[in-house]
This record gives sequence, C-alpha cells and structure tokens, in this order.
Amino acid sequence: MKIIALDSSGLVASVAIVEDDNLIAGYDIQYKKTHSQTLLPMLEEIRKMVDLDMSTVDAIALAAGPGSFTGLRIGSATAKGLGLALNIPLIEIPTLEGLAYNAYGAKGYVCPIMDARRGQVYTGIYEFVRSEELENDGYLLNIVEPQCAVDIEEIARKLNDLGNEVLFLGDGVSVFAGKLAEEMKVPYHFAPAHMNRQRAASLAALGIRYYKEGNYVEAKEHAPIYLRLSQAEREKKEKEAHDNHKTNDAG
Amino acid sequence: MKIIALDSSGLVASVAIVEDDNLIAGYDIQYKKTHSQTLLPMLEEIRKMVDLDMSTVDAIALAAGPGSFTGLRIGSATAKGLGLALNIPLIEIPTLEGLAYNAYGAKGYVCPIMDARRGQVYTGIYEFVRSEELENDGYLLNIVEPQCAVDIEEIARKLNDLGNEVLFLGDGVSVFAGKLAEEMKVPYHFAPAHMNRQRAASLAALGIRYYKEGNYVEAKEHAPIYLRLSQAEREKKEKEAHDNHKTNDAG
Repeated sequence: MKIIALDSSGLVASVAIVEDDNLIAGYDIQYKKTHSQTLLPMLEEIRKMVDLDMSTVDAIALAAGPGSFTGLRIGSATAKGLGLALNIPLIEIPTLEGLAYNAYGAKGYVCPIMDARRGQVYTGIYEFVRSEELENDGYLLNIVEPQCAVDIEEIARKLNDLGNEVLFLGDGVSVFAGKLAEEMKVPYHFAPAHMNRQRAASLAALGIRYYKEGNYVEAKEHAPIYLRLSQAEREKKEKEAHDNHKTNDAG
Repeated sequence: MKIIALDSSGLVASVAIVEDDNLIAGYDIQYKKTHSQTLLPMLEEIRKMVDLDMSTVDAIALAAGPGSFTGLRIGSATAKGLGLALNIPLIEIPTLEGLAYNAYGAKGYVCPIMDARRGQVYTGIYEFVRSEELENDGYLLNIVEPQCAVDIEEIARKLNDLGNEVLFLGDGVSVFAGKLAEEMKVPYHFAPAHMNRQRAASLAALGIRYYKEGNYVEAKEHAPIYLRLSQAEREKKEKEAHDNHKTNDAG
C-alpha cells in the first residue's frame, strides 16, 4: 500500500511517500518560512521526483495535533483537500506518537516534549515492546501516558516514578533542558538531530500500522486535535466569564 | 557547526544539512533514477529552500563505502568537489555505521545488511551504549563487528553467539529474509520504512561526533572504501592470474 504523510505541527515542514516497507521519498525542512510557503511545494517536488501517480495513493497520514494552531490548520486543510480530491481516507496520528516513533526500538522510555508556551509542554510517555503478533517480532509503540498538556515538573515526576532511562526529543528539549536537569532522577538523554523533530516518514510508517488496524477516518470527518483552546478562544472565554461575573455582580 | 551530508552508496539518494542539534533540511529519494540525475539537484533544492550560504558550511559528511561502485564514485566526486571548492574537510562515515545510526538508541544489536551480490552481504554489528563522557549520558555507537563483506550465514552465526535481540535494516533484508529465518536463533526483527535505508541526516548527526573527535580528512585525501574489487578489476586480476598460469605452464 502507498501512503502520503504530512507534518506541519511544529516548526518543521515534512512530507513523505511510503510504499509498504520502503520510504520512496522524504523531505524535511526546519526553517523560518511558513508552512503555507513550504508544505505543498515540497509535496509537489517529491511527487515529480518519483513520478508519483496520485491515483495510486491509498491514504493520507498526518500529524493530527497537538501543535502550532496555524501549522495544524495548514496540515489538516492540505490533507483534507487531498483526501477529498482523491477520495481516500485520512490517518490521524497524534503528534506526540509520531514523534516517539522516530526512535523506533529505543531502550527505556521515549518522551517527546513540545513547547506549548505558558509554562506547559505537550508531551506523552511511550515505550517499544516486542509483540508476538507482528511479523519478525516487531516492536509495538506502547502508550504509557497518552499525549497531554502539562507542566514539565509533572511529566518529570511521572518518568522518575517509572524508574527507567528516558530518551527525550522534540522542540521542547532546548527550552526545558535546565528544568529537566533539576527534576530528573533517572538517567536521560536527548535524541540527536536526525530523529529529534517531527518527521512525515515516521507518520507514514506508523500510519501503515494504523491503516491495517482499520484506524482511519473519511477526509470530511477529520478535525485537528488541539488539546488546549487557542489564544483567541481563551480570551473570548475569559471575557465571557468576566462579563458573566459582572452581570452576576450587578444582579 | 554546520554540516552537509550526502549518501549515494545504495539505491537511495539522500542529502541533508545539519546545524548542531538541528536537522535544517533532509531530502531522501529511493527511485530508479541514477544518482547523477538526483544528488546535486536535491542538494541545490534544499540549499535554496533554506537560503544556505555555502561559505558557512564547516564540513561535508559522506557515506564513504562500501556500496554500489558507481554510487560511491558519484558521492565521493560530489563531496570532494564541494570540499575543494569550499576549502573544508570531508568526514568519511563507513556506510554500515551510518545505516546503524538510523536506529540510534535501539535495544540489543543493530545489524545493517546490504546486498553485495555474489551471495555476500556488506554488514557489521553495532550497539548503542551509554557513555558518561557525553553530555546527558548520550549513547555511543559501539562497533561489535566492523563492516565487512561476508556470507549471510557467517553474520547470522556471530549474532546467534552474541545471544541478544537484533534489529536488521538495509536493502539486504528483503533479499535474505528467508535465509535469516533459517539461520537466526535469537529474537530479531526488521526496521520500518522510516529508518531502514541510508539517510544523510544520520551521517550528519554521526558526522558531528566524528568531527569533534578530529576524525576527518582533507578533501584531496579522500577515497571511497570499496571493501571488494570491482567487477572490472576482478576480471582483470583473474585474466592476469590465468595468463601467468599459462606462461608458467609454457615455461
């Protein structure tokens, strides 16, 4: 089967084409351009490079969130447009799961952290466990702690309680390295450059497993997972609460 | 520091730009086009995408061999040309080490296998071990068995003797899966699409470590590691041996 994957959940713009066990094309950029300038041109570049016939694509995998609100919307809109045009389903991969899958087969726990601003991180805890069901005893990505928005101290405490070594990755690493040095009681380290950011190729590889489990949606059903309210929504809610409060006061 | 990396040792054409812990750009193609059609246009594509000023690049990392003879020569010629033009050194990464580094942090042993034809594989055995010297207790790539050209049975026997689980990757996997099923006595499995082929991003990440250890050469000193004679050289040697034999017979 053939999958196109997209990730624009963070600073990285990443696209990939995977056919079964083969990465036919992968293209990753981490640069200050906006995703609306990069994502579709990058997909068009790899499509041309490998003479891809779009009608042979079985599904679109994407980083479904959390992440940058603008980034998620660009990714979702692109994936949805492709899915509707080609009449194929979307495979929604939680962003943190996709990130963890970069480190397929890693020892101990894998903990992706994304800077969620306002003192929080988007994170989760994952581990790779052998599964007899999979061919050649491949590893399953086991979700120890599903993706969530929490304080860095909280995830550090959970990792300390688990008591095994941890591989951190994601754009939150450089932001919270100092905090982690204070909080972490178990051995930990940081993933190197080739696996420490979002990669569409990982989404595609994990996406094939999702697809085989029937874990996909129709393009029109898809919506990003934000985990938190956007700044505009938050401010609206705060204003409403404030107004209600004033009304109550008045009443 | 900033590194450009190239890999054309196999069917994959791959280029990357890494700055310290960040993959700025990575581009991987696995398609039937020849590397002379893909490698430089791919590098030019990513250079333009991230507005790279070539004078800021510190070194060129490349898959130095073994691999396809034509592929290695295209990669070496490209790297050497860039190195000479920019007056920067080359970081020669043994192809199998670069492949193993894809699976950074993996449990057990990592065994990349490339189909070397004539019943042999290019392979090696690697493991990731914690090192106190590295910051954040990062993993070192430990070479258990350096890269070599051997029969698949020989590498399987060595892995069985080591007695721990094995992650296989590389283009030899699909060719030798049947043989491995017969020979392997320890748990093993195959790496998924996002990490089972040559990746310039891995060379760049490993290349930064090489560079910091002073492990690089001047561009003019570089030559690929072939491990075996090319078909033309082999046939010439065989012919010479045959001619010598005839001369001896005559004498």
